[in-house]
Amino acid sequence: MNPTPPNPPRLAARMRDIAPFHVMELLQKARALEAAGRSVITLCVGEPDFPTPQPMVDAALAFIRKGDVHYTAGLGLPALREAISGYYAERFGLDVPASRIVVTTGASAALQLLLGVLVNPGDEWLLPDPGYPCNRHFVRMYEGRPVALPVDESTDFQPTAGAVDAAWRAETRGLMIASPSNPTGTVLDAPTLANICTRVRTLGGHVVVDEIYQGLNYGCEAHTALTCDPDAFVINSFSKYFGMTGWRLGWLVAPQAYMRDIEKLAQNLFICAPVPAQYAALAAFSPQTRTMLEARRAEFARRRDFLRPALESIGLRIAGNPRGAFYLYTDVSSASDDSHRYAHELLDRTGVAITPGLDFGENASARFTRIAYTHEVPTLEAAVERIARMPR
Amino acid sequence: MNPTPPNPPRLAARMRDIAPFHVMELLQKARALEAAGRSVITLCVGEPDFPTPQPMVDAALAFIRKGDVHYTAGLGLPALREAISGYYAERFGLDVPASRIVVTTGASAALQLLLGVLVNPGDEWLLPDPGYPCNRHFVRMYEGRPVALPVDESTDFQPTAGAVDAAWRAETRGLMIASPSNPTGTVLDAPTLANICTRVRTLGGHVVVDEIYQGLNYGCEAHTALTCDPDAFVINSFSKYFGMTGWRLGWLVAPQAYMRDIEKLAQNLFICAPVPAQYAALAAFSPQTRTMLEARRAEFARRRDFLRPALESIGLRIAGNPRGAFYLYTDVSSASDDSHRYAHELLDRTGVAITPGLDFGENASARFTRIAYTHEVPTLEAAVERIARMPR
Repeated sequence: MNPTPPNPPRLAARMRDIAPFHVMELLQKARALEAAGRSVITLCVGEPDFPTPQPMVDAALAFIRKGDVHYTAGLGLPALREAISGYYAERFGLDVPASRIVVTTGASAALQLLLGVLVNPGDEWLLPDPGYPCNRHFVRMYEGRPVALPVDESTDFQPTAGAVDAAWRAETRGLMIASPSNPTGTVLDAPTLANICTRVRTLGGHVVVDEIYQGLNYGCEAHTALTCDPDAFVINSFSKYFGMTGWRLGWLVAPQAYMRDIEKLAQNLFICAPVPAQYAALAAFSPQTRTMLEARRAEFARRRDFLRPALESIGLRIAGNPRGAFYLYTDVSSASDDSHRYAHELLDRTGVAITPGLDFGENASARFTRIAYTHEVPTLEAAVERIARMPR
Repeated sequence: MNPTPPNPPRLAARMRDIAPFHVMELLQKARALEAAGRSVITLCVGEPDFPTPQPMVDAALAFIRKGDVHYTAGLGLPALREAISGYYAERFGLDVPASRIVVTTGASAALQLLLGVLVNPGDEWLLPDPGYPCNRHFVRMYEGRPVALPVDESTDFQPTAGAVDAAWRAETRGLMIASPSNPTGTVLDAPTLANICTRVRTLGGHVVVDEIYQGLNYGCEAHTALTCDPDAFVINSFSKYFGMTGWRLGWLVAPQAYMRDIEKLAQNLFICAPVPAQYAALAAFSPQTRTMLEARRAEFARRRDFLRPALESIGLRIAGNPRGAFYLYTDVSSASDDSHRYAHELLDRTGVAITPGLDFGENASARFTRIAYTHEVPTLEAAVERIARMPR
């Protein structure tokens, strides 16, 4: 009906800087192989293999059943914000009032919301490389400039106050860090974290701490940046430790002085976080749920304790000290000089899907892959046997 | 533990341009009045009073029960994208392939996603005033410049091709329109819509059409911009017609050439839309659900047909021809020269909460309020009786 020909696509300039998840190609190929009857072991997805704990499922079922699923306040259900506040008190001995807590549509929305309030065009933000790939895109989305802060094994893939100081420029406005880290699973120790927070504060900047793998720690205690810096901006999530990936629920803790602006931006960007998820999360902190979550943590620890030496025994070195999350950052340089190609070949030849380092930055990424221990030990054993068959 | 004093809050410049929802103050006051024992009638919230249809609730329950709530693909469940494609075929006789459909976290995420792909800093976008308040903030968020396109009763509060042409400048990149419109409930007729789409295409720009109230139309047929412009960008939602507000689910239709970029931005910004909601929505298009939704539409029509003359009989004129959504854009100038103050006084004196025009722009907004018919007729009767008590 419209005689005028369509205009050629015209994309915003930012799209040139936004990378797809390379692992998605692998995942699609993995699904195609499975559909064709091949046996595939998927160690490339960033989510626990466990279902959502039943008490949380039951809480959601009870709420949904009547169908009264209406909007909540933009900052989230008051009862859930109180429950999260209670979690900080009970688990970390901290007073984090509910008035400083925002319930968000996953950590993704928390990052979006927070950076919308903080990032001006042209501002530089320091981001550890390797790191969570979306962070640089969230900065870019607001016309900020993500600046890679290369981290390596010498500091367990975490920044130090000195490195932050050295990289800081007049245009730098903040630093994003993650502990436990994705993709390395390394954990910032409390003194280093405190030093970083103090240094950034002295520099007049902001620290955003991604704690979405909080609680998934092995051989060390869970901690929070709020202990050493009550004014840190902290991102958290119900996805990983609490087993709620597909529900899309997370939270943000911010200093009180920012809350009015965070609220108005949250109303405008999201209206509110998904309400069935909010009701499910009300049961996240019960003793019954906690017992289940701690059993899962023990299971992840067993898997890590199997997989790490098993991979090393076949010549794949694990880089850094993986004390958290469910990832091993695995050096495949003994087998290939291109981890992206290696990941494709591994999938083609053996049916094992892992994530190429490229998805986490450009710092020596051709050397590394991320292997997620999101299967039971027998499956991990089978995966190691298959990986061992690869030529090197 | 941190001896350095906190830095004073430093907000991104955009926050100065982002307004809170003024109705939230009214809503908070309404809840406080209710808590104090007052009878309150809330006609200020943009969501149906109906629960989610039972077939959709049941679909969600069946899916959630096992707790296997994991991520879906960034563009949404393939089956849901197919179902939406089927809806366009069945209801509008259109071939909109699933490959052009993205499932999003409400229309909010669809708007965010689309404008992220389209808006460059400094780009101007034309937005009808009055209109949905978040739209200008989505443009501003990407450092674009929202430009108000004043619309009034002479064109049923909708733009015309001529008005768009007159407002278009070298920096203008696009136009956002909504049919049915929030806050006026007016509907663009098909020829006007086609003219606008053709004109904007000739000008080399984009048209984004908000169809989130599609299906809620009274005395006229539901339609879609895709009929007159297969290359329009169309935003839709499961919130309003399908009764899923709190679930947070919507969709976006885009030309095929944009889909690769939309997918990579969706992965980065959202990972995926809430999965319980996606499973609920799989039952949205069944004949059983459709019957329920059409009964609700008939009920909304009855309410409109009661409320419009009832308000007019007490001297409050309804502006424009409200043929859709569930709003009456009500001229209160016979009672007050400041609709914001009027809304507060009305709530204080009578316990009726309505939305001030200020929430929808600056174009004669002091004259108007938005009244939502989201209660049954007896409650609306009571509300009109109370409003009639206000001095004028």
